[in-house]
Formats: sequence, structure tokens, C-alpha cells
Amino acid sequence: MEKITPRLPSGMRDFLPEEMLRRQFVIERVARVFEAFGYEPLQTPVLELEETLMGKYGADAEKLIFYAQHPGGKEKLALRYDLTVPLARAFALHEGKLSLPFRRYQIAPVWRAERPQRGRFREFYQCDVDCIGVEGMEADAEVISVAVTALQRLGFSDFAVKVNNRKLLTGIGMYVGLEGEALANLYRSIDKLDKIGADGVRDELLKSGIAAEVVARIMALLGTGEIAERGYVAAAEQLAQLRQTLANVPLALEGLAELERVFAYLEASNIPSSMVAFDPAMVRGLGYYTGPIFEAVLLSADPEERVGSLAGGGRYDDLIGLFRKTSLPTVGVSLGIERLIVLMEKRRMYPEPLQRTVVQVLVSVFNESLRSAALRLASQLRAAELSVEVFAGNAKLGKQLAYADKRGIPLVALLGEDELAAGVVKFKRLRDQHESVCPQTEAAQHAQMLLEGSQV
Amino acid sequence: MEKITPRLPSGMRDFLPEEMLRRQFVIERVARVFEAFGYEPLQTPVLELEETLMGKYGADAEKLIFYAQHPGGKEKLALRYDLTVPLARAFALHEGKLSLPFRRYQIAPVWRAERPQRGRFREFYQCDVDCIGVEGMEADAEVISVAVTALQRLGFSDFAVKVNNRKLLTGIGMYVGLEGEALANLYRSIDKLDKIGADGVRDELLKSGIAAEVVARIMALLGTGEIAERGYVAAAEQLAQLRQTLANVPLALEGLAELERVFAYLEASNIPSSMVAFDPAMVRGLGYYTGPIFEAVLLSADPEERVGSLAGGGRYDDLIGLFRKTSLPTVGVSLGIERLIVLMEKRRMYPEPLQRTVVQVLVSVFNESLRSAALRLASQLRAAELSVEVFAGNAKLGKQLAYADKRGIPLVALLGEDELAAGVVKFKRLRDQHESVCPQTEAAQHAQMLLEGSQV
Repeated sequence: MEKITPRLPSGMRDFLPEEMLRRQFVIERVARVFEAFGYEPLQTPVLELEETLMGKYGADAEKLIFYAQHPGGKEKLALRYDLTVPLARAFALHEGKLSLPFRRYQIAPVWRAERPQRGRFREFYQCDVDCIGVEGMEADAEVISVAVTALQRLGFSDFAVKVNNRKLLTGIGMYVGLEGEALANLYRSIDKLDKIGADGVRDELLKSGIAAEVVARIMALLGTGEIAERGYVAAAEQLAQLRQTLANVPLALEGLAELERVFAYLEASNIPSSMVAFDPAMVRGLGYYTGPIFEAVLLSADPEERVGSLAGGGRYDDLIGLFRKTSLPTVGVSLGIERLIVLMEKRRMYPEPLQRTVVQVLVSVFNESLRSAALRLASQLRAAELSVEVFAGNAKLGKQLAYADKRGIPLVALLGEDELAAGVVKFKRLRDQHESVCPQTEAAQHAQMLLEGSQV
Repeated sequence: MEKITPRLPSGMRDFLPEEMLRRQFVIERVARVFEAFGYEPLQTPVLELEETLMGKYGADAEKLIFYAQHPGGKEKLALRYDLTVPLARAFALHEGKLSLPFRRYQIAPVWRAERPQRGRFREFYQCDVDCIGVEGMEADAEVISVAVTALQRLGFSDFAVKVNNRKLLTGIGMYVGLEGEALANLYRSIDKLDKIGADGVRDELLKSGIAAEVVARIMALLGTGEIAERGYVAAAEQLAQLRQTLANVPLALEGLAELERVFAYLEASNIPSSMVAFDPAMVRGLGYYTGPIFEAVLLSADPEERVGSLAGGGRYDDLIGLFRKTSLPTVGVSLGIERLIVLMEKRRMYPEPLQRTVVQVLVSVFNESLRSAALRLASQLRAAELSVEVFAGNAKLGKQLAYADKRGIPLVALLGEDELAAGVVKFKRLRDQHESVCPQTEAAQHAQMLLEGSQV
């Protein structure tokens, strides 16, 4: 066969063991939080029918979809672009076997042919929880609680969740007399508040032909986009003030009442006051949201940590209806797991000492006649749930210790002819060069204690 | 947007929560065994460059590859067909960052456009461990031990690993005077022993033009293909006998010596004698194997359990060389994880009671004014690592109990106005209708005890 140079497709990654261990740490911890809130694992296939994905993401996004086929295949296939449309498709397909409310999580890769650049990949993980079938605001508060708890469990504390409501935004538009395309333009401009600032938004709105007086009223209602005040008290005050201003806009009042309930449920769920904020200027793209929307942002002054939102989501009551006769109320949140992993790396948030290998004990082999004894010892240690590597081949002590050190293996079991004859095992802990000897029968217990840091 | 009927591509599956919980049980258990033997997680992308996969699997297999592209994309991409070629590609690409021996596992889907039929899918999981860089037979024995231990940990005991060696097979060919195409034909015929029996193989060999006397000698050497005798003693006897017969064929002797070492290492690793057998008639397809080969088969009389091998693998010292200047000795084993899952389902090998949901406790809500108290209780239970669902909406007691029962949730926390006023929580365990009351402050501990089965 022809030799070829090993290459990866552009935008694709291999995860080597050290990186995988850290990714698994994040994924397992987050999944545990999802399950603690009653969200169940669901897995959809990587390939979907093209018709399932078409028309769901907008024309620009659709250009990024990867298509798939096999020679002679008749079905038009595509790699999933997100986890939300497949959820809607899967729920509609299997609803006879599922009960409502249906809470599911999925942590899995999606594919987008974005232009490759630093930190942007064409295969990357999404990490979603969604709750189908609950009309009440308890579902919105629940998925926000899930996101906050997951971020806390990963070790983040300097973040806040900005909460808003699409009904309120539309109500504000109605209040100042905007609807249809003008309202969509308003959304688009407000969405840029982070990037172009309040002045930039004001200029855009004026240029789009909205009267100066109307623009001034909008800007007064929206605030600056910076989180001025966090907490339940501040949110209640802001909501009460808007309630007065928008007293004649029923949709706005409905949105405000929903937000009041969301904040009340969050408070009852022990979500810290410092981690929530009402933000009337938050839009979350143009997506499919129909009610409350939310976004967790890092409160960091470090410009290198301007990573966008840590998590985001909202209520989208119409999507499921694309795959069944009537729609169902749905709310979801997505954790930006790839950027969380990068941030945790930068901030050294992984447990120290950083686990570089799954191996806890290296059993040395000094010559081939000692291999059987080494294998027996390894089998004994594994029976006690330890992860054990037996040295392949054989080498002098120094070389085997150097190998363990290079690999990051914490403990080496030395089993030479003397130890074998005496029925003992000698252990060397590399971190502090601590050496000890124990009877072979107690090897597993002894190793366990050494790994826990005891001076046995 | 246009409504469409929810459909899956042919041969693709959704895994609903109940099935996912069982799949995760199997995958986690198996991964834990892999790590216990020092195998590290590696993840390669789903999409590989077409050139990476081409020419590796043979023309028939290649027809089953799925290709992928995005509009305007210049790279020719394909979905991975197995986990072995991507391993070779990834190792060669990153070897500067890896040390030898490199032990890795990967449990991940692959794609093959097989004709869809019952139990055969186009997206299915493979589950591989491979060890790169060890020439000695300790690696071959190690991956066999990994497979045996994984099967044992899943609860299988009625299986055996058949072991053979490609060098021995080639040596037998040389002994009877076959080489090149005639030898390949011999392999192909022997490989059908399971299907067409010894008589069928004899006929095929005679038809292929091999002299009757030679065929008789071959058949005498190969045995019947049934596992006649298991165990280390039987294997040693068979190997010793072949050693005499093949005394003038150096390659065969080399193969026999390797097998003797493999069996010795397996015995030292506490692999039960009843689970190993030497089988000179086992070929394992025509693949890329160069040394010892092995296959775990179920010892079941039930015709519904004729599922093919549970695991299989061998030494393939040439593959890595397709992606780098020189090759490296490599040995691997693949667990047939999809058929293991099916078998475990059929045999009811999952822990009873079968976990149907992640939820351990349902906190009831009798009216909206009680929701805040329910959320507080849920938050308290989750802090103690319990998985808790809060009833969405509100309903009468009977309806909430019926919901928990339907979902398979074991415990319901009842928090009505009376309980709230008295500072207590009432629990109902559905399995035995056991009811108990505890102070709210002790709710987590109390729930834990009820879940463990105590009559508190």
C-alpha cells in the first residue's frame, strides 16, 4: 500500500490522552449536574436526512452544513449542525414512547464548515439541556438553575446570568411604534450593544430612519448593555419601573410577569443573587426564541477572557411544531463547553496535580523471568480497582523510574528477585521519592494509601 | 417554515433515555477495565481525509464508506470506517508528543453503508484497545486479558478466547507446499470452517486443486474448528505436538513459541484456564494481521445467541508504517460492543431493578404557592448528590404518584401545606408503598436511606 503523510482535515482535532482526561472531567461533571436536575441522556445519530435540517438555521448558516453520501446511496444526508433540531425531530418521531415533560441532555459534536481560525473548529462539542412540554416559568427557571449549577460545579464563581424576554422586547417595539421589519432591525441593532456600545446603537437606529425622539425613548428603556446592577432586588425594581412605563402594552406586561416568576423561582432554588441580572438590552441573535431568554457571561476584566457567553438559551415554543401537528412549549440552555474547557485550562481550574495518565501504578519488570510475578501483582492490584501498567520489555531500575516520571505515573511497584523471595513488594512514590515495603498480600491496600498521600 | 414528517436515515438510530442508560452502563464499565490496564482515552474526529482511508480496507469494504463535503469545500472527506486506521494516522501525526508504548482505547461510532437489516446499522459503535510499540508477546497477552476482564466485568462467564498465530498458519501452508495465492485460498477456505464445517472446507480445498493427500494433512493439523479442549494444559499439548510435526518449518516454530509465551502470560495474569483455547483453524478474515490472532466466542447452545465473536483482534505490525517511515509493532483487540449490548438485554444482565430514569426523587407540587418550598427542598436534596425532579405544573396527589410510577421514579417527596407548617417532609417509596416522615433538615439523609431500601 502507498505511504501517505498523516494529516487531519482542516478545522478537525485529535484529542490526545492528557487533553481527553480534562475534557472527560468537564463532560462528566456537567452531565452529573444535568442528571441531578432530572435531565436524561438522549443520543441522536451524526447523520440526519438533509430535509430535517433544511430551512431551520437561515441561509447563511445553511452554507456551513456538511453533506454526506455513499456511492449509490439514494438518501440525501447531512451531518448535524446543532443538537436542537435533531431533538425536535427525535421527540416527534418517538413521542409515543416518551412522557411529558421530556427533559433530555446531549453532549456531542456538531459540524459546521466555518472558516478555520484560532480557537474555531469545524467539529466541536455542544452541550444542551432542553425541557419539552412545560408552559410555566418553572421550566425557564429550571434550565437557568441547571446552567448556573453546572458552572459552579466546574469552579466558576465570577459570572452572572442576564435574563430578558422576547415578549418584552416586542412590547417595547410596540410601545415606540415599531413592528415587522423595523422591529427586526431594532433587534439586530440592540444585539450589537456589546460590540458597538450605546452610542453605536443609537447611531444605527437613527440611520435606520427611526425618529430621534423614539430612539431616545428606546435607549432610556434599554440601558447601556453593561450589567449595572445584579441581584433579585435590582431586577424587581427595574421590572416594576418598566411595568409602569409599559402599562398599556399587554404583551410587555405578560413578558414582565413571566420574568418576575422566573426570578422568584431562581431565588427559591438558591441561585445566588449576585449571579442574576435583568438585562432589557439582551437579544440573543434572531433565533427561534419566543419568551424568556438568558445568557451567562463572565465578569472578568481580563481582555484575554472576552470569550462571549458561557451559556445561553431561552424558550422556543414553535420549533417542535415543525415536526408534528401542533407544537409544544420548549425551553433549553446550551453550555459553551469548548470555551469553558479553554477558560479552565487558562485559569488552571483542573484538580491538581493534573492527571496526565490514567495509570496509577507502574509494575516494574527487571528481567523476563520476573514477568509472571509482575503480571500476578498487577492482576491483584487491578482487582482492588487500581489502574496498573506492567512495564513492557525489561530495563534497569533507573530507566523504568524515568519512564514513570515522564509519563506522570505517581507510583512504581518494584518486584525484584529479592522482594519475590521475601514475599514483599517495594513501592516508590515519585512525587516525594518516598519508599516503603509491604507484604505482597497487602500490596493493593498499601498502594492505595500511598496514592492518598500517607507516609506508610 | 414547512412542516415535515420526522424520519431517520436508514440504518441510523436514536437512543432514547432508557436505552442510553444501559448503553452508558456497558460503555463505562468497559472503559473502566481498559483504564485499569493502563489504556488511555484518545479521540479522533468523525471526518478524516479521504486519502487517509483509501486503500486500507479492500475494494468491497471501500464501497461502504460515506463521503462528506460542504458547498465550496476543497478537501475530500470521509466518515471514519473503523477506529484502527485513524489511530495509525493520529499516532504518526502526534508521535512527538506521545511516548512508547502507546496504549489507547476509543469507544466511538463508525459509519458503513451496509444494506440495512435487522440488527445491522450504518452508524454503530466500535470499542478498541491497541498497544503500539511492544514487540514482545506480553502485549498480545495483555490485550487478550483486557478483553476477557471486560467480558467478565459485564457479567459474561460462558465464553472462551480462541488463540492462533498467522505465522503458524503460513508455516502450515509452507509445510504442505502452499504459498502466494494458493495460501490465500487456504486461509479463505479455513475461515469458513464455522459456516461450512470440516467437510465443506475439505471439498473446497480439493476443488481448488490441492492434492487429496495434502488436503488430508492440512485437515489433520487444523482440527474441526469446534473448541474441542480448552485450557492451558490442552493448549500446551497441542502446541508441543505441532512443534514435532512442523520441526523443519522455522516460521511455524516461531509462531508456536510466540503462542507458548502468550499462554504463559495469560496464566500468570489469572485468566481462567476454562476461558482460553488454542485453535489452529482460526483465521480472522484476511485482514492485516501478522502474528498472534484471537477471538472470544460465546459457549452457548442457544441458537438465538449465535452472534459471532464477542471480541477479536491480533498483532498487525505493518499498519502504522503506512503513515510513517518505519512501522511499529502493534497489537489490538476490539469488543463487539453492539452485540454485547443486545446479548445483555436478552439475558437480562443489567442490574435489577432496571434503571429507567436518572431521577431518584420526584418532589411533588400541589399548588403554585407551594412551588418555592418544593424548589428549596429539591436544591437541598441535590446538594447531597441526589437526582431530583420537581413536578412541573401542579396536580392532585394521585396523579403525581401515577406519573412517578409511569416514569419509574423510585421515591416521591410530598410537601403539602401541613408538612410545610410542621417543618417536615413525607416520603413515599413506590416499590413497596412505604411511607415515612422526617424533619426537613434531615430530608437528604432520609431519602438516601429509603433509596437504599431501609424501613425508616
